[in-house]
Amino acid sequence: MPALKSRVMGAEDAAALIQDGTTVGMSGFTGSGYPKAVPLALAAHIVAQHEAGNPFRVSVWTGASTGPELDGALAKANGIEFRLPYNSDPIAREKINRGEMNYFDMHLSQVAPMAWQGFLGPLDTAVVEVTGITADGGLIPSSSVGNNKTWLDRAKQIILEVNSWQNPALEGMHDIYYGTQLPPNRVPIPLVRPDDRIGEPLFRCDLDKIVAIVETDRPDRNLPFAPPDEVAFAIAGHLMDFFAHEVRVGRMPANLLPLQSGVGNVANAVLTGLVGSQFENLTAYTEVLQDGMLDLIDSGKLRMASATAFSLSPEASERINADMARYRDRMVLRPQEISNHPELIRRLGCIAMNGLIEADIYGNVNSTHVMGSRIQNGIGGSGDFARNAYVSIFMTPSTAKGGAISAIVPQVSHVDHITQDVQVLVTEQGLADLRGLAPKQRAALIIGKCAHPDYRPMLEDYYARASLSSYGRHAPSLLSEALSWHQRFIETGSMRLA
Amino acid sequence: MPALKSRVMGAEDAAALIQDGTTVGMSGFTGSGYPKAVPLALAAHIVAQHEAGNPFRVSVWTGASTGPELDGALAKANGIEFRLPYNSDPIAREKINRGEMNYFDMHLSQVAPMAWQGFLGPLDTAVVEVTGITADGGLIPSSSVGNNKTWLDRAKQIILEVNSWQNPALEGMHDIYYGTQLPPNRVPIPLVRPDDRIGEPLFRCDLDKIVAIVETDRPDRNLPFAPPDEVAFAIAGHLMDFFAHEVRVGRMPANLLPLQSGVGNVANAVLTGLVGSQFENLTAYTEVLQDGMLDLIDSGKLRMASATAFSLSPEASERINADMARYRDRMVLRPQEISNHPELIRRLGCIAMNGLIEADIYGNVNSTHVMGSRIQNGIGGSGDFARNAYVSIFMTPSTAKGGAISAIVPQVSHVDHITQDVQVLVTEQGLADLRGLAPKQRAALIIGKCAHPDYRPMLEDYYARASLSSYGRHAPSLLSEALSWHQRFIETGSMRLA
Repeated sequence: MPALKSRVMGAEDAAALIQDGTTVGMSGFTGSGYPKAVPLALAAHIVAQHEAGNPFRVSVWTGASTGPELDGALAKANGIEFRLPYNSDPIAREKINRGEMNYFDMHLSQVAPMAWQGFLGPLDTAVVEVTGITADGGLIPSSSVGNNKTWLDRAKQIILEVNSWQNPALEGMHDIYYGTQLPPNRVPIPLVRPDDRIGEPLFRCDLDKIVAIVETDRPDRNLPFAPPDEVAFAIAGHLMDFFAHEVRVGRMPANLLPLQSGVGNVANAVLTGLVGSQFENLTAYTEVLQDGMLDLIDSGKLRMASATAFSLSPEASERINADMARYRDRMVLRPQEISNHPELIRRLGCIAMNGLIEADIYGNVNSTHVMGSRIQNGIGGSGDFARNAYVSIFMTPSTAKGGAISAIVPQVSHVDHITQDVQVLVTEQGLADLRGLAPKQRAALIIGKCAHPDYRPMLEDYYARASLSSYGRHAPSLLSEALSWHQRFIETGSMRLA
Repeated sequence: MPALKSRVMGAEDAAALIQDGTTVGMSGFTGSGYPKAVPLALAAHIVAQHEAGNPFRVSVWTGASTGPELDGALAKANGIEFRLPYNSDPIAREKINRGEMNYFDMHLSQVAPMAWQGFLGPLDTAVVEVTGITADGGLIPSSSVGNNKTWLDRAKQIILEVNSWQNPALEGMHDIYYGTQLPPNRVPIPLVRPDDRIGEPLFRCDLDKIVAIVETDRPDRNLPFAPPDEVAFAIAGHLMDFFAHEVRVGRMPANLLPLQSGVGNVANAVLTGLVGSQFENLTAYTEVLQDGMLDLIDSGKLRMASATAFSLSPEASERINADMARYRDRMVLRPQEISNHPELIRRLGCIAMNGLIEADIYGNVNSTHVMGSRIQNGIGGSGDFARNAYVSIFMTPSTAKGGAISAIVPQVSHVDHITQDVQVLVTEQGLADLRGLAPKQRAALIIGKCAHPDYRPMLEDYYARASLSSYGRHAPSLLSEALSWHQRFIETGSMRLA
């Protein structure tokens, strides 16, 4: 479009349109589809301003995590005043944990609705990566959808990055639902299977709001794939046995139910386990499509996967780019308020599989705060899925840091998932099916099945003494010891007794 | 029906049909509509069995809390092996906290789906209070709906109590939705306004499963109404100001959004506050209809209230019984999997207002466990509403036990509601609007606005020291002190420093 042609410019010129003290809504979800040029240029601009003695900081909203050219560069430039809804960048994490950056860690399903609701304040600029602009002004989404629809709708001005590195065959994979409303005007979301398409393939956009178009040709942050280790395969093995059992006793269909899976080593081991399993005709309704999902599709086991973003290794990224048209028939990317919507997760009956930092003997889960105060990444979508799942599974190696940390502790130092939302807990040691159990029944199972043998006697000792002298014996605890394992780790570098 | 006439019998004969070691699903939700004769007879039977040296205990499932003739009598008889999903009976509470009864404290929306899912085990007997049986075999629900539909569907045998104390004009107030399914067959629930009727007025029932019909004429457990005190009115005042502000800035419609309100002193003060407010044409989508809701209806302010049960004082109960046909037009009672359904709460955009035991400086809320281990009642529906509300409000007096306990503590001793689900915190001291804030911003507001002046300096001192030496400074904490206020209360009877 000629009108838009005139707005094509370099990243520096585009970044200069962003003002100090404003809020920028950026694209990006787990290292996919984030803008790669404008944030870098903005960071350079901020550094220059700081060197000139001028204050310059912005609030940054995204879908979830992004890449080093966005969070890393802006954090390094001391350019982020406030960040939501999720971060996994190490430089930003360090700033947050030094108390130098405010971070609002959110349920990912709620970001868009809360932005519409208005209390987060106005959105000044959207910076969104797309793969193209159609002749009639539709925007072709990139490798993540995230909150882009909402940023484009709400921002006063829009900066687009058109990334030619992204595969043009992505067009048609997306399903952008425009039926959301604020109450009292909300209606049922008409999705009843992970396959359903309920929206449009393109973003609508008020072209008058586009103030800059920047052309890029840069890859997503695709991290090398760490192959699962023995511990991860042991966890996956316990889970395969559990699924087989649930099908056998009639509590799950033979093709299971839509899978939700986090990223990483253990998640990939589980997906690999499913490749080698008896289960057929599987579906996924999840946040991200990782390497293991591609393997499952290639194996013919996974019929359909719905998500909001890719999260791939460079190799998997090459694989999918070489054959995008075929994969496109088996994948849908949706806005994150739809991929993570409680209404849909509960309706579909997802099998939720998430990692954790630590769990306690009653099954409370800490997914975010190391030693209770130091945030690792964020709650992400785990709360959306865990509370609404048909079965909510949490999985973790039983120890971390070479055995210095037990993943099972007397009391978690921070809670992200309450016992009611933690139904199955799995470590390489075993699987605890906690469904329908009272606290003391849960404690016996978790200590017996999930704890590492090095820490099991310490947990048994704590629990036995708590059972004798706790204030209440519904969920026995010793308040003066409940967090002592964490304190010991801070003081000595290990949760083990000297 | 003649076939049913032959099954009319006394409570003792009916109770004798219940076997040791089985599971009984009873009606009842907050002291309404629970069976009043068979549980008492069962308790007597159990006592006799125990005296004869025979073991006899049952598992008891209900809607929520019940009355002394059910939980109290069975707990006193040592007759309950396992209890779900909620308890507020003092005798049962004592057994639970002595470690003598297993109690599975659940999200109330999940009870029925989990029963269908099967992992809770089989349901042997349903004992359900109804107000009548129609000529063609439909059951007229009583003053609560709870999980009765599910108990009637799933139980191997059914015992009915037909209570002539209940008002026959209740007929037609209920809306029993029969469209629920297990995944993958779930579909959208077609409710878009609190007023919508999506089901049937009667329970369906396989009459062949009815093994006993017991006639009763006994009142619900309607507790005297404690009029709100100054503290409760101060909390309500802050909330009225907040609502007015939200309407003024355009974040809420002029008639607000469907109200969810817990029971008790503070909740009733808020409803009384609404009676005297500028708000008109209100609706409620909530668990229970308490005295304040009747006042709101009588004032003409509340157009429509949807719930699963009544929870009234004897006076309010008389008022409603004297004029049931009129109230019936403004009330719907639904199964609790519908009154508390996350899909519906999020769609309607409820304003959730719940009480708490304690909150911490970051906004984590403990609703259930006194000093971390002694359960008070249970999470009930607070999790269903808090996570899915348009605005999630928690309210409490800033101190308890004559000032010996601060409702605001450095770290809660148990978590039911994570910071993401706690958006507004109100005490008589003030209101903290925590929406969109990072942990340190929340801490400043909670300490400054909500804490009691007697405890504020202690909280400021803790927080200042934590900010200097915490392991991470995203949400500063001192692990060795975080639970020390609770420990001090256990040891000295007060959280105050000596």
